[in-house]
Amino acid sequence: MGMINLRAIANVIGVLLIILGLCILLCIPVSLFYQSGEAGALFNAGAFTMIMGILSWKYNLNTEGEHLTKREGYLIVALSWLLISIFAAIPYHLAGVTPNFADAAFESVSGLTTTGASVFTDIEALPKGILFWRSMTHWLGGMGIIVLTIAIFPLLGIAGIELFTAESPGPTTDKIHPKIKETAKRLWGIYVLLTIVCSLVYWIEGMTLFDSINHSFATMATGGFSTKNASAAAFSPLIQYTMIFFMFLAGCNYFVIYSLIKGRFRKVFNNEEFKFYVSIVLIFISLMTIGVILRSDLTIEESFRHVSFTVVSLITTTGFVSYDYTLWGYGLTSVCFLLLFVGACAGSTAGGIKIIRHIVFIKNSYLEFKRILHPRAIIRIKISKEVVAPKILTHILVFLLLYIGVFGVSMLSLTLLEYDLLTSAGASATCLGNVGPGVGNVGPVNNFGFFSPLAKYILSFVMVVGRLELFTILVLFTPYFWKVN
Amino acid sequence: MGMINLRAIANVIGVLLIILGLCILLCIPVSLFYQSGEAGALFNAGAFTMIMGILSWKYNLNTEGEHLTKREGYLIVALSWLLISIFAAIPYHLAGVTPNFADAAFESVSGLTTTGASVFTDIEALPKGILFWRSMTHWLGGMGIIVLTIAIFPLLGIAGIELFTAESPGPTTDKIHPKIKETAKRLWGIYVLLTIVCSLVYWIEGMTLFDSINHSFATMATGGFSTKNASAAAFSPLIQYTMIFFMFLAGCNYFVIYSLIKGRFRKVFNNEEFKFYVSIVLIFISLMTIGVILRSDLTIEESFRHVSFTVVSLITTTGFVSYDYTLWGYGLTSVCFLLLFVGACAGSTAGGIKIIRHIVFIKNSYLEFKRILHPRAIIRIKISKEVVAPKILTHILVFLLLYIGVFGVSMLSLTLLEYDLLTSAGASATCLGNVGPGVGNVGPVNNFGFFSPLAKYILSFVMVVGRLELFTILVLFTPYFWKVN
Repeated sequence: MGMINLRAIANVIGVLLIILGLCILLCIPVSLFYQSGEAGALFNAGAFTMIMGILSWKYNLNTEGEHLTKREGYLIVALSWLLISIFAAIPYHLAGVTPNFADAAFESVSGLTTTGASVFTDIEALPKGILFWRSMTHWLGGMGIIVLTIAIFPLLGIAGIELFTAESPGPTTDKIHPKIKETAKRLWGIYVLLTIVCSLVYWIEGMTLFDSINHSFATMATGGFSTKNASAAAFSPLIQYTMIFFMFLAGCNYFVIYSLIKGRFRKVFNNEEFKFYVSIVLIFISLMTIGVILRSDLTIEESFRHVSFTVVSLITTTGFVSYDYTLWGYGLTSVCFLLLFVGACAGSTAGGIKIIRHIVFIKNSYLEFKRILHPRAIIRIKISKEVVAPKILTHILVFLLLYIGVFGVSMLSLTLLEYDLLTSAGASATCLGNVGPGVGNVGPVNNFGFFSPLAKYILSFVMVVGRLELFTILVLFTPYFWKVN
Repeated sequence: MGMINLRAIANVIGVLLIILGLCILLCIPVSLFYQSGEAGALFNAGAFTMIMGILSWKYNLNTEGEHLTKREGYLIVALSWLLISIFAAIPYHLAGVTPNFADAAFESVSGLTTTGASVFTDIEALPKGILFWRSMTHWLGGMGIIVLTIAIFPLLGIAGIELFTAESPGPTTDKIHPKIKETAKRLWGIYVLLTIVCSLVYWIEGMTLFDSINHSFATMATGGFSTKNASAAAFSPLIQYTMIFFMFLAGCNYFVIYSLIKGRFRKVFNNEEFKFYVSIVLIFISLMTIGVILRSDLTIEESFRHVSFTVVSLITTTGFVSYDYTLWGYGLTSVCFLLLFVGACAGSTAGGIKIIRHIVFIKNSYLEFKRILHPRAIIRIKISKEVVAPKILTHILVFLLLYIGVFGVSMLSLTLLEYDLLTSAGASATCLGNVGPGVGNVGPVNNFGFFSPLAKYILSFVMVVGRLELFTILVLFTPYFWKVN
């Protein structure tokens, strides 16, 4: 490849670190208010991050306005995630709440990728400022993903994005179109607005203000970090129903939410992914509720509530827990395991495969049978009445297979470290899908603390790979990327 | 769809049943020689099958030479497998060795699909005639698969077959080309020849004549039924090495074996799938041998032998067992689990995904990264220096995803019957891949007897779906197939 413009990359990352440092400093008031004693650690972490950011930004100022290549775009995204993850781990490390840096890094990556898998056993014993930082990493990660999916991924050629940004004209040049910038701002506005509304409702319904803001951050980012050891089980049924609602909302495509706010209901109901999302949520809730009523001692209302909570929490990749689903028998545990592979709508903060890709897979598989019976016909697949280009189709099929491939490699790596097959499969699926709880020893009431540092780094890597739609990270491991031409 | 020519279908199936009945009758001398007492049952089963075959064939004689449509082709394949499986189960049922028909059907399907998963706990207690029939179902199934892959699948539009039959001109019309008939005969000749050679070598090396023939049937069909409770562990190291050799051979594309026999070595070494097959077998043996030496009490020779045996047995989907691989720790068990998804070369008697499809997946995934970096370039995938048509590429990617999909549905079904997740995953993977042993409660030293009749029917269905390359069976469940047009 040609020379990489490292200065331009350093400039962009510098700005991001400055923002990150500011956010860390924002947690100091929380620490001081609760007198939880880690204000000094937060100050050191925040100040250090800001200084590094300013240095990186300031000494590369003259690169502004330079044209970045696609390769540099990939490097910016990858290096940003690496560095932000490391800097975001510093507060945990300096506050002394993690036994080693691997734990701090895992918690940091789990927060930023909106996964919500935790290494902490006693969450309620953590200092309040650290808890607030933990929730804030979710919220920042969610915000980052919105700008990535809207503005950056399409430029990087992560095809398939066209399928859900089709309603706004996609980027046609290699520069971020002013319209895209506008769009990103508008979507951020929705994100901020929903976060405020969500925390207000939680607060009114009985959470403390602190809990309401933390849970609102974790909900809207589809993260899953709770401030309670019991996660959502610590709250009233009313709050649990509210959480179901906001988790579901957070799993919607932001363009759909925007259309809803603007009252463009026809657009919403023409959106195939949204319809499919609503349908599968309802279908899984109905079937699983029947199963739970038949197999457990829960009342009908409890069955319905906990099943709804579990289904929405897993499909949206949030990972809050209202009930230990592994108590519902092998069959329903297996359903929950498969739900780890769904992922909500593209263009939301949810991780995982995303429903649009499942639709493409299902429709195309179905058409493949038609193609076999009519080998001479050219049979194209349509989504929301638009033909999907063969290139995008191939891209999505490759994505799905690579997803399974990464899952397999991750599971294999963990078993080679002598974790059992079920735990390894559960941890890999939930980390790759950015969900949180898994099966085996990483079930809904367990945590990830028992993994070795190496296993934690592997799972952190898997979380980032999943969060950045596989290709963004994996492309760095191909010789094509590094070839001079 | 237009009228289905049921008479023509009945005619073809009639012929197959006559052959099947004859084969059942061929087991009578074995029973009489060993005085094992089930000769009467075998006679009744064989005679009944023959009579049903003759009736079905004779009353539909005038349909000879009629042109069969593609739909009728699918129906013939599916109905043949259904009926042959049922009739091949009758000997077990009449001899009273199975507690119910589900067990008999499972054993019959497991034999015919060359899977080798068994419901029997004490194999050595079975009457010798029944054991012989059990091995023979493997051999007949292997023979059937050769004719299906060479002659029938290409006609049915199961694309991708072109990739391994490329050396012989593929069928260009909708009728079985005389050349294809010739090819099938030649490949059958190789199959028969190898079976004879294999059983002679086994015999010379110390097996009884009875064991040698049975194991030769199971080896060349990549089946895995043994006449010993301990499977291959009952034999000497020399025989085990010989079994490794013949299993490996049975996993080769028959066109490659044909080229080898004819001394056309350049053709063999230009065959990408063959080279890949050799490579992955060697790589897995090397790495796993090191692992086993480090982790177990086996000597170096024992480690090498048992690892080689396990790797070749699983990759070729044979399923003979020389050692319980689940004793080698979670990591190597997990490797063995993943090997269930490999499958040897296309155009062999092996089941599973097949290496050619993995090559297409790996190459294409790799190229996808190139496509992302160079969005305007048209980047095609080549196998053995030939460009793979986009249609075939899509077909193979869909196959791989459907394979994972069927695996998931099968696993889910078993867990809903309250079998644990690992056992359900192991049973599903090994049945879909036509291997034999799995993980969990269906490990190398377990059997499938404990499953409920419903679970056995589900797994039987999964074995047939895997054996017939998914599409052949799944197409029957699409409305396209049954639509009148």
